[in-house]
Amino acid sequence: MAGGPVKVYLDFLSQPCRALYIFLKHNKIPHTVQLVALRKGEHKSPDFTRLNPMQRVPVMEHDKFVLTESDAILKYLANTYDVAEHWYPRDPKRRARVDEYTAWHHANTRLNVVKVFMTEVLLPMMTGQPAEQKKLEQALQELDQTLKKMEEMFLKRQAFLCGDDITIADLLAVCEVMQPLGAGRDVLKNHEQLQNWKSRVQSALGEPFNEAHSFLFKLGAKKPKL
Amino acid sequence: MAGGPVKVYLDFLSQPCRALYIFLKHNKIPHTVQLVALRKGEHKSPDFTRLNPMQRVPVMEHDKFVLTESDAILKYLANTYDVAEHWYPRDPKRRARVDEYTAWHHANTRLNVVKVFMTEVLLPMMTGQPAEQKKLEQALQELDQTLKKMEEMFLKRQAFLCGDDITIADLLAVCEVMQPLGAGRDVLKNHEQLQNWKSRVQSALGEPFNEAHSFLFKLGAKKPKL
Repeated sequence: MAGGPVKVYLDFLSQPCRALYIFLKHNKIPHTVQLVALRKGEHKSPDFTRLNPMQRVPVMEHDKFVLTESDAILKYLANTYDVAEHWYPRDPKRRARVDEYTAWHHANTRLNVVKVFMTEVLLPMMTGQPAEQKKLEQALQELDQTLKKMEEMFLKRQAFLCGDDITIADLLAVCEVMQPLGAGRDVLKNHEQLQNWKSRVQSALGEPFNEAHSFLFKLGAKKPKL
Repeated sequence: MAGGPVKVYLDFLSQPCRALYIFLKHNKIPHTVQLVALRKGEHKSPDFTRLNPMQRVPVMEHDKFVLTESDAILKYLANTYDVAEHWYPRDPKRRARVDEYTAWHHANTRLNVVKVFMTEVLLPMMTGQPAEQKKLEQALQELDQTLKKMEEMFLKRQAFLCGDDITIADLLAVCEVMQPLGAGRDVLKNHEQLQNWKSRVQSALGEPFNEAHSFLFKLGAKKPKL
């Protein structure tokens, strides 16, 4: 059923790219990686634009089938390859819990992490100017509200976002949360439940988690202390 | 497999609520509707907050299983009830196309429609002040970019967003696009491909489409001409 090997186009500074890479490595899905360096504008090259006119990563190619959107790619891989059931359960109610979080994720966890990282790290790097404090405070406050909802609505009294085992939802979420953490901003300091969840997710993912995040950690180490 | 009837909590002024209602009616899924009037703050009542602490509609209840997020609810219904295959195909590649659009939808189509409707209709209604023109122009421009991407990336040379038949993606998308249209703002005027797509979707959905949108049309008729 699985067909030929998967090819993925990634930049390790992108949260959803890391999620995809970890999933492939952890589940030992045969794949090749082509790096697309966003900071060098490689996502705007004619070749990459032909592949994905949206000029975004990640992109997956499998038997000439080109797919964008990490959420869709992870679900496609779970539906196509023989990965452990817990990642994206087949039972409609358990699967719906994963679809519920991933639907919510886009305009909440992801959007608010992107705002913080853009204001605090990317814009200052690109312009050479310090971060705009007022904008940064607001972005941090909005992210904090989102993290609170993750705890109250999804984690509740369960070990992972969608139940008692790790799913695609946890993978997408942890890679977002790692973005400000990796850059030295401790967004989890008032969120004990999420701290514990992060440890659980990290141990469930093992070495691929550290490998995928090593580039982000290097960037964080170069950045002036916040 | 399907169990007892479905209960849904809806406000017909909400785009994803209309999508859910149309899906239930069109596919003749046994259901009851409880209206939750957002303009009266009914989504903040203690009863509704117990059901959905996010205080958002739609919500679905099925055999004591409570689910939020329209995207997840529609997929759950397609996985649970005997609806036509085209809505959410089982073939992994065709299903991935639907997951790709719905993942993209949240922070693009939906977010930009919400911004336009909020700036042009809701805020002026709530404050009694005219819409802020500069904000409105920017929101309209961003929505226009999104509509352009819908045409170039998803419709391409195919009849529906994810292929040659209607899926959950078209349903979610058309209910968003109807929001400014229903309020008298012709956001499709430079988008002939989307105009034709909208006609196709509308005829595929039949009477439930009109029924779900009748409240929005009434609101649009009451609004001063734009």
